[in-house]
Amino acid sequence: MIKKAVVLLVTLFYAVLLQAEDGYRLWLRYDSITDAALLKHYRQNITAIHFDATSQVLNAAAAELLQGLQGLMGQEIVQTNAIQDGSVVAGTAQNKIISSIISTEETDKTGKEGFIIKTAMYKGRKIIVVTATRDVGVLYGCFALLRLLQTNQQINTLNITSVPKVKLRMLNHWDNLNRTVERGYAGMSIWNWHKLPGYIDQRYIDYARANASVGINGVVLNNVNANAVILSPAYLEKVAALAAVFRPYGIKVYLSARFSAPIEIGNLETADPLNAGVQAFWQQKADELYSYIPDFGGFLVKANSEGQPGPQNYNRSHADGANMLAAALKPHGGIVIWRAFVYNNNDDDRFKQAYNEFQPLDGKFSDNVLVQVKNGPVDFQPREPFHPLFGAMPATPLMMEFQLTQEYLGFSTHLVFLAPLFKECLDADTYAKGKGSQVAKIVDGSLEQHVLSGMAGVSNIGSDINWTGHPFAQANWYALGRLAWDYTLSASEIADEWLRQTFTNDNMFLKAVKPMMLDSREICVNYMTPLGLHHLMGYSHHYGPAPWYNKAERADWNPVYFHKADKNGVGFDRTPKGSNAIAQYNTVIAGKFGNLKSCDEQFMLWFHHVPWTHMMQSGNNLWEALCYRYYSGADSVAWMQRQWESVKNIVDEERFKQVKMLLGIQKEEAIWWRNACVLYFQTFSGMQIPAALERPGKILDYYKSLSFPYAPGIGGNQ
Amino acid sequence: MIKKAVVLLVTLFYAVLLQAEDGYRLWLRYDSITDAALLKHYRQNITAIHFDATSQVLNAAAAELLQGLQGLMGQEIVQTNAIQDGSVVAGTAQNKIISSIISTEETDKTGKEGFIIKTAMYKGRKIIVVTATRDVGVLYGCFALLRLLQTNQQINTLNITSVPKVKLRMLNHWDNLNRTVERGYAGMSIWNWHKLPGYIDQRYIDYARANASVGINGVVLNNVNANAVILSPAYLEKVAALAAVFRPYGIKVYLSARFSAPIEIGNLETADPLNAGVQAFWQQKADELYSYIPDFGGFLVKANSEGQPGPQNYNRSHADGANMLAAALKPHGGIVIWRAFVYNNNDDDRFKQAYNEFQPLDGKFSDNVLVQVKNGPVDFQPREPFHPLFGAMPATPLMMEFQLTQEYLGFSTHLVFLAPLFKECLDADTYAKGKGSQVAKIVDGSLEQHVLSGMAGVSNIGSDINWTGHPFAQANWYALGRLAWDYTLSASEIADEWLRQTFTNDNMFLKAVKPMMLDSREICVNYMTPLGLHHLMGYSHHYGPAPWYNKAERADWNPVYFHKADKNGVGFDRTPKGSNAIAQYNTVIAGKFGNLKSCDEQFMLWFHHVPWTHMMQSGNNLWEALCYRYYSGADSVAWMQRQWESVKNIVDEERFKQVKMLLGIQKEEAIWWRNACVLYFQTFSGMQIPAALERPGKILDYYKSLSFPYAPGIGGNQ
Repeated sequence: MIKKAVVLLVTLFYAVLLQAEDGYRLWLRYDSITDAALLKHYRQNITAIHFDATSQVLNAAAAELLQGLQGLMGQEIVQTNAIQDGSVVAGTAQNKIISSIISTEETDKTGKEGFIIKTAMYKGRKIIVVTATRDVGVLYGCFALLRLLQTNQQINTLNITSVPKVKLRMLNHWDNLNRTVERGYAGMSIWNWHKLPGYIDQRYIDYARANASVGINGVVLNNVNANAVILSPAYLEKVAALAAVFRPYGIKVYLSARFSAPIEIGNLETADPLNAGVQAFWQQKADELYSYIPDFGGFLVKANSEGQPGPQNYNRSHADGANMLAAALKPHGGIVIWRAFVYNNNDDDRFKQAYNEFQPLDGKFSDNVLVQVKNGPVDFQPREPFHPLFGAMPATPLMMEFQLTQEYLGFSTHLVFLAPLFKECLDADTYAKGKGSQVAKIVDGSLEQHVLSGMAGVSNIGSDINWTGHPFAQANWYALGRLAWDYTLSASEIADEWLRQTFTNDNMFLKAVKPMMLDSREICVNYMTPLGLHHLMGYSHHYGPAPWYNKAERADWNPVYFHKADKNGVGFDRTPKGSNAIAQYNTVIAGKFGNLKSCDEQFMLWFHHVPWTHMMQSGNNLWEALCYRYYSGADSVAWMQRQWESVKNIVDEERFKQVKMLLGIQKEEAIWWRNACVLYFQTFSGMQIPAALERPGKILDYYKSLSFPYAPGIGGNQ
Repeated sequence: MIKKAVVLLVTLFYAVLLQAEDGYRLWLRYDSITDAALLKHYRQNITAIHFDATSQVLNAAAAELLQGLQGLMGQEIVQTNAIQDGSVVAGTAQNKIISSIISTEETDKTGKEGFIIKTAMYKGRKIIVVTATRDVGVLYGCFALLRLLQTNQQINTLNITSVPKVKLRMLNHWDNLNRTVERGYAGMSIWNWHKLPGYIDQRYIDYARANASVGINGVVLNNVNANAVILSPAYLEKVAALAAVFRPYGIKVYLSARFSAPIEIGNLETADPLNAGVQAFWQQKADELYSYIPDFGGFLVKANSEGQPGPQNYNRSHADGANMLAAALKPHGGIVIWRAFVYNNNDDDRFKQAYNEFQPLDGKFSDNVLVQVKNGPVDFQPREPFHPLFGAMPATPLMMEFQLTQEYLGFSTHLVFLAPLFKECLDADTYAKGKGSQVAKIVDGSLEQHVLSGMAGVSNIGSDINWTGHPFAQANWYALGRLAWDYTLSASEIADEWLRQTFTNDNMFLKAVKPMMLDSREICVNYMTPLGLHHLMGYSHHYGPAPWYNKAERADWNPVYFHKADKNGVGFDRTPKGSNAIAQYNTVIAGKFGNLKSCDEQFMLWFHHVPWTHMMQSGNNLWEALCYRYYSGADSVAWMQRQWESVKNIVDEERFKQVKMLLGIQKEEAIWWRNACVLYFQTFSGMQIPAALERPGKILDYYKSLSFPYAPGIGGNQ
């Protein structure tokens, strides 16, 4: 018997050894707790689960809890109605056991999606209650409980109440119907439209689980450069199949709507939002949509931007367009998310254009419309000041649009943890209603008491086995969800949580890798666009440096438009002497940004054309400071490499090698950015690279000669 | 101690439970043997491994053997120089232990890639010898030994000698530089060009392992609709990185060469093969290629076919073009594989054109050129007669081109095991040198004593986690490798091997699933193109039925060109009264195909325009027989569904569900094919569908109205 057990033990051991850490499991690995004391603690406190009712959502929650607990604790967990010491009792406040412990008043405070996790005594048994007003809150509570174990927290006296700050917590997929992904760097779209609706890929389910685990409750399936075909019956059937997969996980499906769909699939000659036929088309389309998907979320719209059709084609306003769609969706409870990312090819500073177009429309949108604003005024650069629309449209719920896919931050090759970028924006004070009017308070609707609120991340998910291409890019997906739920979490807390769940709770590991994650974004800023430089990347594909580029069909697609380097200096003068973009900010902010002395150096070249000889706080002149930043950025990647090398024996071999290889590429590309930019700006400054710094290995013409005809992520709207 | 062991046991058990059967591991799963008696048998016969030398290839072999044996036997296997009972002694014939057991003369008979596996006594120890003349043979022997265990064979008295029949055993990837795959239905290209050479995806290694396990020794990385950019230094560096991954697995890299590359990347104004500058370009390019990849295999060329450039652009022959490239590669030991898949938009039967162009060139190709011929004369249809070039070019080594990706057989959605299709062609007798001149003997070079021989499969591999989209499509990759090694294997033997390794050795499972696999191709023929119909699929994307289609820019891209249905009958008259394509065959074959009475009914409509009222062997007329075939095909998919349902409790849940869903789609699509084709041909026959058969659910116009703008697999040469 013992011998047999040992044989089986060894057999199973080799089976586990063969299990690859390929990254597919994301932060939901549920591997056995390795700390013996902790394992004992968990086994004492959790022995069974009790779910009080069956619904799709509760079934999903129970399945997750069972799978997670059994994996983490390496023992069978029974699902039973009997209450015993260590029962996890999960259900809504209607459950009689639960309501005898937690009052419905207390539960009601958690709203429609929050939850309570609480250690309690019930008839002499010590139990853990997971409760909420609705099933979905119970689901979130179960994921939160699992997270406690995954991050090795004590669970003997739990008393947690958690309520999401933002209502719509979303991913936007820029996925095309031909499965290419615009700005996708992790393979192709995970939506296999061809095999839908008949074939439900396991990925769809695991995607929903991952989203629910961080509270994401809405997904836009298709590219904002939209294709009307997705609104045709053949595709709605496919969309409905996905919606059915996501429903048990509390996730609603949204679609990007092409504004000219009435022409393309409706046989109309116009898409004018004030045309009765167009209105009827959208009403019918909405009715049809809801017949397929009763809980359809609504439309995301990119209109009159970068060639997309929109209401301005008919001399109507964005509000006219949005409200027309909103009216169609309203009877069904749907919403419209209208993007503010617009700029015309005119003479005004591109920075200013979204504000110019949208600010005057404040108060003109229907009550089921949100305006979705990118975090910064240009386009997801490594660092941008917060978008001036935040705080400038008090009557309109403004939704935040972050970008998870690293279009401008090294694709899926560079390790760049974005939570610090997100936090920098969310924490920025707009002064819209005086000091303390942070962007976050506009986004969550609290500053103006909006009913709707939302935060979206442009997805970095693709068909790569590890979902995001870079193992660490998973952390950006995770961070978006966590911050949308609770933006008061620090980047460090999020990194800590994610690392523990995704890799290991080992302290040596955390000590080495967490700082690397937290510094990574600033490092990227330094080797790409320090001191407020922006939009220096290659044309169209956005890969690598091309500050010299000036051949785009539109001036404001050229890097030279943004840096304006000349022999006198560098930077975009957005003070009243220049484009006066700063006037779009509250006067407190405008005063700060507008004065070269008070402007934080990290934003300096966003707002000022600064002489090369300008003396920086460090005592170096601008040219020197720029060089030091670029070199520091590249050197810091070498530091990241050393940090990673130090955990070689702590982390699994497969992911260790992956990250090591990727850091190797990141190092090369950081030097490429550094050399290309320094050599290019040197042609204006005419000054030497400080003597302490190594010389670039190649001449500028070499960097200019590089071309990348097949760089990934160039979309289209197929 | 016991308690701790039990706890660990349970812990590991749950860890194993969580391991997904996602199909990634292909047929190399190496899960523990579940049959206790068998496990004991293996543990008695294998206890350690002894590798006599280190080389990249032997290291790969040793690692695979260790991983495989430890997984299968669930115990540690030591690698030691000491010889003990149960040692596996692996090495070339130079090894002193081995040469004391097996004479070098005996080993020499296995050639450059074959191997011997033999049970032997050495100094009183019972050992297993795995030997070959070269390291790669030892690698193949190790995979063969693992296969014995995976398929639950006895291993106590082994005496196996295995020698590949075909020298070049290849996969052709139709993968583009932008990672789309022409006729790819399993995601995007597994070659992540953007991240190469710095990032080596684990997939590359596992791909090489899988290929080596079935003896595949060459891969063409890029689409035959080629892009010259792959020959530029930036890409050669990436190609070299892949070659380095494949080298330890005995796999050489080949590239599809674009014939006009001298113009596109060589700054020349011509690609004329007789132009000295062009010749110099290719010589330099070859030198450069071999400086990156010393063991580069050679070029695959699609020229003057479907818009590709070629020597005919300059009034030169295919031989002129091929020989020019061959001369450039010759000093380096490289070869040219020149495709015979050509057809012009002229008045002659497309069936005949490859023969017309190539047969006269027999004897004109250099000795390092092979001509690669598709199995049939049109294009990878569900059933084709063998290509008339086989047997017609005795002086030229003809390489076989099969298609693994199911362009015309249901994409990656239909379960169609292709070994019966491959075997049907390989076993066909060409009568080229009298009876017994099977296609296989031309392909292996034995009929004419050619030095070169080859068999290629157009890859069905993509970025899907399970590699091939359909779990069963893996079997077609497997079958290609196994048949290229030994075409005398039966389809049943191959299915048996593959099922045991990929799923389970359970007899109930094999009894239910093997017949389903073996019949699947005939079933597909029946519901798509029975009785010799061909090329009835949708235009361009080739998805679904469109026998009515007649709008293509070229006549021979239209289904109506191929079936020629009219009120009198259906089928393409290729007898002397028609296009006389049969004259391209040996007179014995031509006599058989050319006579409606002797022509096998399964090829009938390939060669004859047959009246609807023609009496078939069954006693039904042609129209009725056609209906019965179509209905039988669709009904047989329902039988496949039942067979699969019967193994529900034997197979893992994940793959059970996947195949079940895919069979569901296959059933629907089989009915779609049936209904669309029967309704369409009925418009010509004017006869009723036999009363016993159910009526189609929709009218013909419905089927004609379907459109699929985003069906997968439409390529391009980006």
